[in-house]
Amino acid sequence: MKQDCILFGAAYYDEYMPYDRIETDMQMIKKAGMNTIRIAESTWSTWEPQEGEFDFTHLDRMLDASEKYGLNVIVGTPTYAVPTWLVRLYPDILPVTHGGQNLYGPRQNMDITHPMYLKYAERMIRKLMERVQGRSNVIGFQLDNETKAYDTCSKYAQQQFVSYMKEQYPDINEFNHEFGLDYWSNRINNWADFPDIRATINGSLGAEYEKFQRKLVTDFFAWQAAIVREYATPDQFITQNFDYEWRNYSFGMQPLVNQFEAAKCMDVAGVDIYHPSESDLTGAEIAFGGSMGRGIKGSNYLVLETEAQGNLGWLPYEGQLRLQAYSHISSGSNSVMYWHWHSIHNSFETYWKGLLSHDFSENVTYKEAMQIGAEFNAIGSQIKNLQKKNKVAFMLDNASLTGLKWFPISDSLNYNDIMRWLYDAFYHQNIECDVIPVTYDNLADYELIVIPALYSASEATLARINAYVESGGHILVTFKSAFSNEHLKVYSDAQPHALTNCLGITYDQFTIPKNVTLGSNGNSYEVSEWLELVTPSTAEVWNSYEHKHWSKYAAITHNEYGKGTATYLACYFDQKYLEQVIARLWTKLGNEMPSIQFPLICKEGINDEGQLVQFYFNYSDDDQTFVYNANDGVALLDNKEIHKGDSITIPSWDCLIVKHSI
Amino acid sequence: MKQDCILFGAAYYDEYMPYDRIETDMQMIKKAGMNTIRIAESTWSTWEPQEGEFDFTHLDRMLDASEKYGLNVIVGTPTYAVPTWLVRLYPDILPVTHGGQNLYGPRQNMDITHPMYLKYAERMIRKLMERVQGRSNVIGFQLDNETKAYDTCSKYAQQQFVSYMKEQYPDINEFNHEFGLDYWSNRINNWADFPDIRATINGSLGAEYEKFQRKLVTDFFAWQAAIVREYATPDQFITQNFDYEWRNYSFGMQPLVNQFEAAKCMDVAGVDIYHPSESDLTGAEIAFGGSMGRGIKGSNYLVLETEAQGNLGWLPYEGQLRLQAYSHISSGSNSVMYWHWHSIHNSFETYWKGLLSHDFSENVTYKEAMQIGAEFNAIGSQIKNLQKKNKVAFMLDNASLTGLKWFPISDSLNYNDIMRWLYDAFYHQNIECDVIPVTYDNLADYELIVIPALYSASEATLARINAYVESGGHILVTFKSAFSNEHLKVYSDAQPHALTNCLGITYDQFTIPKNVTLGSNGNSYEVSEWLELVTPSTAEVWNSYEHKHWSKYAAITHNEYGKGTATYLACYFDQKYLEQVIARLWTKLGNEMPSIQFPLICKEGINDEGQLVQFYFNYSDDDQTFVYNANDGVALLDNKEIHKGDSITIPSWDCLIVKHSI
Amino acid sequence: MKQDCILFGAAYYDEYMPYDRIETDMQMIKKAGMNTIRIAESTWSTWEPQEGEFDFTHLDRMLDASEKYGLNVIVGTPTYAVPTWLVRLYPDILPVTHGGQNLYGPRQNMDITHPMYLKYAERMIRKLMERVQGRSNVIGFQLDNETKAYDTCSKYAQQQFVSYMKEQYPDINEFNHEFGLDYWSNRINNWADFPDIRATINGSLGAEYEKFQRKLVTDFFAWQAAIVREYATPDQFITQNFDYEWRNYSFGMQPLVNQFEAAKCMDVAGVDIYHPSESDLTGAEIAFGGSMGRGIKGSNYLVLETEAQGNLGWLPYEGQLRLQAYSHISSGSNSVMYWHWHSIHNSFETYWKGLLSHDFSENVTYKEAMQIGAEFNAIGSQIKNLQKKNKVAFMLDNASLTGLKWFPISDSLNYNDIMRWLYDAFYHQNIECDVIPVTYDNLADYELIVIPALYSASEATLARINAYVESGGHILVTFKSAFSNEHLKVYSDAQPHALTNCLGITYDQFTIPKNVTLGSNGNSYEVSEWLELVTPSTAEVWNSYEHKHWSKYAAITHNEYGKGTATYLACYFDQKYLEQVIARLWTKLGNEMPSIQFPLICKEGINDEGQLVQFYFNYSDDDQTFVYNANDGVALLDNKEIHKGDSITIPSWDCLIVKHSI
Repeated sequence: MKQDCILFGAAYYDEYMPYDRIETDMQMIKKAGMNTIRIAESTWSTWEPQEGEFDFTHLDRMLDASEKYGLNVIVGTPTYAVPTWLVRLYPDILPVTHGGQNLYGPRQNMDITHPMYLKYAERMIRKLMERVQGRSNVIGFQLDNETKAYDTCSKYAQQQFVSYMKEQYPDINEFNHEFGLDYWSNRINNWADFPDIRATINGSLGAEYEKFQRKLVTDFFAWQAAIVREYATPDQFITQNFDYEWRNYSFGMQPLVNQFEAAKCMDVAGVDIYHPSESDLTGAEIAFGGSMGRGIKGSNYLVLETEAQGNLGWLPYEGQLRLQAYSHISSGSNSVMYWHWHSIHNSFETYWKGLLSHDFSENVTYKEAMQIGAEFNAIGSQIKNLQKKNKVAFMLDNASLTGLKWFPISDSLNYNDIMRWLYDAFYHQNIECDVIPVTYDNLADYELIVIPALYSASEATLARINAYVESGGHILVTFKSAFSNEHLKVYSDAQPHALTNCLGITYDQFTIPKNVTLGSNGNSYEVSEWLELVTPSTAEVWNSYEHKHWSKYAAITHNEYGKGTATYLACYFDQKYLEQVIARLWTKLGNEMPSIQFPLICKEGINDEGQLVQFYFNYSDDDQTFVYNANDGVALLDNKEIHKGDSITIPSWDCLIVKHSI
Repeated sequence: MKQDCILFGAAYYDEYMPYDRIETDMQMIKKAGMNTIRIAESTWSTWEPQEGEFDFTHLDRMLDASEKYGLNVIVGTPTYAVPTWLVRLYPDILPVTHGGQNLYGPRQNMDITHPMYLKYAERMIRKLMERVQGRSNVIGFQLDNETKAYDTCSKYAQQQFVSYMKEQYPDINEFNHEFGLDYWSNRINNWADFPDIRATINGSLGAEYEKFQRKLVTDFFAWQAAIVREYATPDQFITQNFDYEWRNYSFGMQPLVNQFEAAKCMDVAGVDIYHPSESDLTGAEIAFGGSMGRGIKGSNYLVLETEAQGNLGWLPYEGQLRLQAYSHISSGSNSVMYWHWHSIHNSFETYWKGLLSHDFSENVTYKEAMQIGAEFNAIGSQIKNLQKKNKVAFMLDNASLTGLKWFPISDSLNYNDIMRWLYDAFYHQNIECDVIPVTYDNLADYELIVIPALYSASEATLARINAYVESGGHILVTFKSAFSNEHLKVYSDAQPHALTNCLGITYDQFTIPKNVTLGSNGNSYEVSEWLELVTPSTAEVWNSYEHKHWSKYAAITHNEYGKGTATYLACYFDQKYLEQVIARLWTKLGNEMPSIQFPLICKEGINDEGQLVQFYFNYSDDDQTFVYNANDGVALLDNKEIHKGDSITIPSWDCLIVKHSI
Repeated sequence: MKQDCILFGAAYYDEYMPYDRIETDMQMIKKAGMNTIRIAESTWSTWEPQEGEFDFTHLDRMLDASEKYGLNVIVGTPTYAVPTWLVRLYPDILPVTHGGQNLYGPRQNMDITHPMYLKYAERMIRKLMERVQGRSNVIGFQLDNETKAYDTCSKYAQQQFVSYMKEQYPDINEFNHEFGLDYWSNRINNWADFPDIRATINGSLGAEYEKFQRKLVTDFFAWQAAIVREYATPDQFITQNFDYEWRNYSFGMQPLVNQFEAAKCMDVAGVDIYHPSESDLTGAEIAFGGSMGRGIKGSNYLVLETEAQGNLGWLPYEGQLRLQAYSHISSGSNSVMYWHWHSIHNSFETYWKGLLSHDFSENVTYKEAMQIGAEFNAIGSQIKNLQKKNKVAFMLDNASLTGLKWFPISDSLNYNDIMRWLYDAFYHQNIECDVIPVTYDNLADYELIVIPALYSASEATLARINAYVESGGHILVTFKSAFSNEHLKVYSDAQPHALTNCLGITYDQFTIPKNVTLGSNGNSYEVSEWLELVTPSTAEVWNSYEHKHWSKYAAITHNEYGKGTATYLACYFDQKYLEQVIARLWTKLGNEMPSIQFPLICKEGINDEGQLVQFYFNYSDDDQTFVYNANDGVALLDNKEIHKGDSITIPSWDCLIVKHSI
């Protein structure tokens, strides 16, 4: 979805304010050059204080005030936290989960399959939509917020799950066979015998329930979207604030939602991206979050939440807030929306600070936002709706992530670790990457597809990959790929199953490396966590293990297959050496390696005018100098000409934006 | 409360003995120079073996034998552990807590708000008091033992809590506003909707429930005291055995009891103090526990429990048991009571050894107790009832402790860590300190008030502090003070709110320090855990951060305000440097720094004769020599004269006690 | 029980196979030289898919195919995992445990005291036995698998426990006294008051419940054995697959089963032994597991499960699978049975790999098994039924293990740690050891009895030990022995109670060592975890503590008592020094120390011909050379003569087997 302008703003909570300051706030928002607020996403108990009694005082105030100051509004449906009275009426709206019986207090702890939750949520949404209808400054709607199935294992959810399995397996014996339930006497010989799923030790069944929970999320969005669309005008968009795997910051692919599927009912993908700051700011999370955000609907996306002062320890150094803002834009985001405007005085996220501190003063972070706002107003039209033409895509898959949770490599290396190991190695070397799902139809869009640990792969997926390589594509595949089918049943032929020919290798044993290294140019790089004992058939061996007993096996192989090539990493090793392997592959494919490297980062896209916009970022405490070697162009922020061959210095935590012809 | 003599003795449990040895024990107690035993505090199932059947065999034996040997007795009410039959009758006397449903087994796991618990406990107490009445060697009563609310979240407790909130907030909307319950849809729009408190994520509400639980303890004591007083004679005291924050030893302020409030119904404060021993013995826990013990009722106190052989790894080296005994006395304790006489042969605390080992022989620890007993008999009258005249007080506050639990600085730095960081820095330099509550009326009693992390501070408290400084007092305040009100609602003006003028500073941002130091005299001291970006208004900057981005902000400031001064520590840093800062402040206030330092510790007080008694302790494995520079006096233990200017050597783990005129 | 041949084979699961391959598998088993499969131990839901409906398709297939290929079969009763329908019928077949309410999914989580479990299990066993009856290649039956009481705390189990206590204590007051229940008001004054055992803090009571749970296991086996014997022929053996304390491998004595008692109803002990592999393979677990296996019934035993490729990280280096096989045989095992034939494609143990990988190919591990099979066929008759004549026995005791769980020394040193500290020190020096229970009648069978931490010891046991030493036996006893009686009541006289005279020492204090060492030959060895302050009466002091305060106490003593000697280790210290102490003792007793040491290991036994068979193993990555100094003999594997004085080199991970006259 294209935007008319970059949305710049913050989440706003009139209902949280210690005293009435809505006019002052709107003025300060305006003063910062902002144009949008996001409201209402966790307000059910405020809008509906008692069953059937509605009170939209705060909503009306925010709509009125924003209208007065010419601000856009994104309205969230307030369904991701339930009011106390609803739990009093229907205590089992708080379900059991793998962790036991939920209690009232936290958000996101209700049963999204409970009929009464759905009934009351629907009425709440309809009342809200009725109230908002006709408000011209409402530009879009956010369905719920960071939605999951919250691990519901309620009777409603489990009954649905049994029906879902039954439908897939008319013959219960086939189900038992496919899922291996003879093991440890786990057979379910009658659907009525289906036991509580929560303690299953069967990885196939446990993972299937997680897949089913992801489907509950997709279904939930479709249900809400249908309701909202009854009221929304065609130019009002529907989105959701998707979040990523959380490791105290946005780390990787979201395990609990199939975002590609879930977003099908939406107009535009919205995401939240949080990342370490201060000396730990690298831009990698912004880049990955952006790749994923673009990938969700294959288009531009909205950053609906990102940090201003952020969590404890994320207070931006001078320049960082602005650096972050352009980092999002350079990934193809059409917005920078802070969570949140003000720092909250009570409850839980008191130290997850907003743009303003608790004292509402114009602090240094707010002042930097003013600069961003001014610049967006000046050059925003030239850097919005950026289109990427990346040659590399990462093929990512929830089911494989879940598979490696049930059958872990180790305590410290899971799916997203492997993915980021690869992603960051590309990022450091300034090769921009897209993200695609395993169901992606047009693999030929890309020159190279990176396939991290595709542990759970259907025959259809593997056939599509093979066909891609045969017809000239290139793949970079890691260990633990194509090992099991879509139900985590391990394939019973040579590994890696249907990819053996394509990769030109085979293996039947693997282990945990101890004192194993890979040598290159006189250096030894540590192999850790996982190692496969690969024997090449047709593949060229790029490296073998340094180890008394495993030295006869290959560690890295490269194979020509059809018109393409397939490269295999049979073990996990030092990222420094991974960068060398990627460079070797990238140049072998006929590409030139970018001349600058992290902490200098370059990202680019084509703007609405058809011009290439390049962003050069300095992610470090020191000034960085490089030779500009793209086409002559103009530096947008100071409108100066820039020429190929110029030596350019970017100050610490600063950036340069150049526009030029392609 | 004044004592006629130092109480020296141990807890005694006739009912635990593997065979009848009461006569032998009383003789051994007597032989050790002891004069007191403490009995009965966990004996309900022994005194009342079945509902309504009472059996005081063991009680009578202990009273008879102690009387025969001229020993005092302190009798505890046996209510802190319930009998099996009571739980069979009323299973829900074991309440739910945050940890789930309690089961029978541990002590201190019943619901002190349960009507049936209270009913049966009252009858038990009355039966016991009737039995004890008229026993002339019973000198006092201990109410229960180490009492808490044991985190009861029973329906009784939660109903009382709702009533307690309702009373404070006739208008439920004010309650919602003050506690910020709009956040995450947590509003309680009707008191009947009040959800189970246990899973609340609202820090204000959660902390208020903990405050309410502390009030339950205060109420419980008042209830027991009233019963006991019906039977006690005027010269029999009422006390309680208060304990401190437990980190496998007595570390800091007790989070679960407001001891200042709780002790109002008592005659004298009793405490237990446990501390590391062997090479880890420093005396700091004894000193802090003593400051707190004195502070509870602003008077002398009783050490009702301390270690003899103690927990595993606390076997005293030669001299340490005696050193510890005088350390307690020098803090103003009027007793040294060991927990416990003999080591228990069964159950749970088998390896928390008493004065005697399991074999009841005269082991080396017992023999050292004999020396202590002999010395107490010789000089006890000159060192009891010691009065302190300390210039420094620590203002301590349960609510701030709880506040920093809900809004933690870090995993490793909580309220008591900060308090002890400061307290120990004073202790190491031989500046003795008192402890006072935030409600203390006569701040002007002190020259310097140390205020660690007063995170939750009412306007009234802050006004009292300001007035104190205005009229000539001095305060030393740390980071995280005056940040939120009494309901943990963050103040919404400049930080540190009402103290900004007094401290002459302001700040609106803070972070976790990474590679930040403070320089002093060519050394760099690490800043860790917490750092505020302070800007002085009127304050003098004593130090600033060594860091590229934070160097413009102040780390330590000192401000003249009215007739007094206010010093602020905006971050947490190396304790070595803190000692320098304290010395700078202390001399600036016109005091001289003590000439000796840890491991030589000097503590002092004025005895009943009006003479100053000074204790010099050597807390180390090596002899320590110093120049005595107080008035000429007499060394009490060997009755030798001692003169100003004498060079004195104190052997390892030994002490010197000097009495002289003031 | 003697065997006709070494049983070599694997667990086989036709019901788990992804496709029909039973013929191929039987051929491959045969090709590997194997002769036995073990089947059926977790198949209830397959054999009885619905209540009362039986389906023995897979059983029949396996019996038919194995018969066709001349393979022996061991049939397991399938009772250690319950079918889903049984849990639907009787949900409380899944009991509460200390961890709460069990849910369906894991194996071994049912209540073995539940009447309905027993009823249905009996029918299942009878149906299976009827089906198997008359099958000539079925050589034996395994009762259940790795059986425990699974911590059942169901009402059935707890009621039985109360009856069991009642029977022991007709006078409830004696029970209260012996168990110390006056403590913390825990008295049970009426059997009807008996509280839920799960939260008891009384170590005596808690440990007694664990002893009772071990008795449940013994009773369960007796019940199953009686049923199976109704159907079995006299030449079909009854066994069980006993496992050991599990620390991700078989570490030490099994805490939850008294295997000596449990095996009384069986013909032969079966065990599983898993151990680290690759560079961590030492043979120590195989040796200890073998000592224990022999000890269970005082005879040869069967290794019913051991690893082929094993758990992740245990992929055998070349030679290791064969080295392991002979290591088992050299301990007196009459079998090497892998768990399991093939790697499982679903569920839970997918990465606990079998002999075959998931692809069923002839991998390198399978090929090494072929070599083992060929060699067993060639020389098996000369190395089976090996009889040991060890001079040293370890006296091991479940109750002491449990005692030290309730009264732990430290987080890192428990009973099995102490036992292995000693066992491995003997192992490293090639002194082979037996294992005996505390009830062992003929202590005089041994020259030296090693007694690790016999914390819980009845008077009878201690009297038997004293008598053994008096009449010429030798004991090596560690700290923490003879401290408490059989109910964990600490003895109330001088420690170590009844052993004071025999050991010639006494002590009444102990602590955790800090900076304590033992000196020997100019080296200092660390003392850690535990230290007793021992005073010798008649004992010779072999070493004392290096420490300012503890140096007056003895650390290691040696006493002559009657015709024997008693050596005491009063602390835990560096194993290197322990080996020196053992060598000193061993030579003092008139023995010669073996000339080779780990990584060269020598184990031996007398075969059916009355010849001595010696196995020399090289547990290292390097070749090892030694001088052969036993009688002239013949190397069995290559049939070469070998002479005393020969210099022999054993390649890395290889072995030499020599047969010679005694």
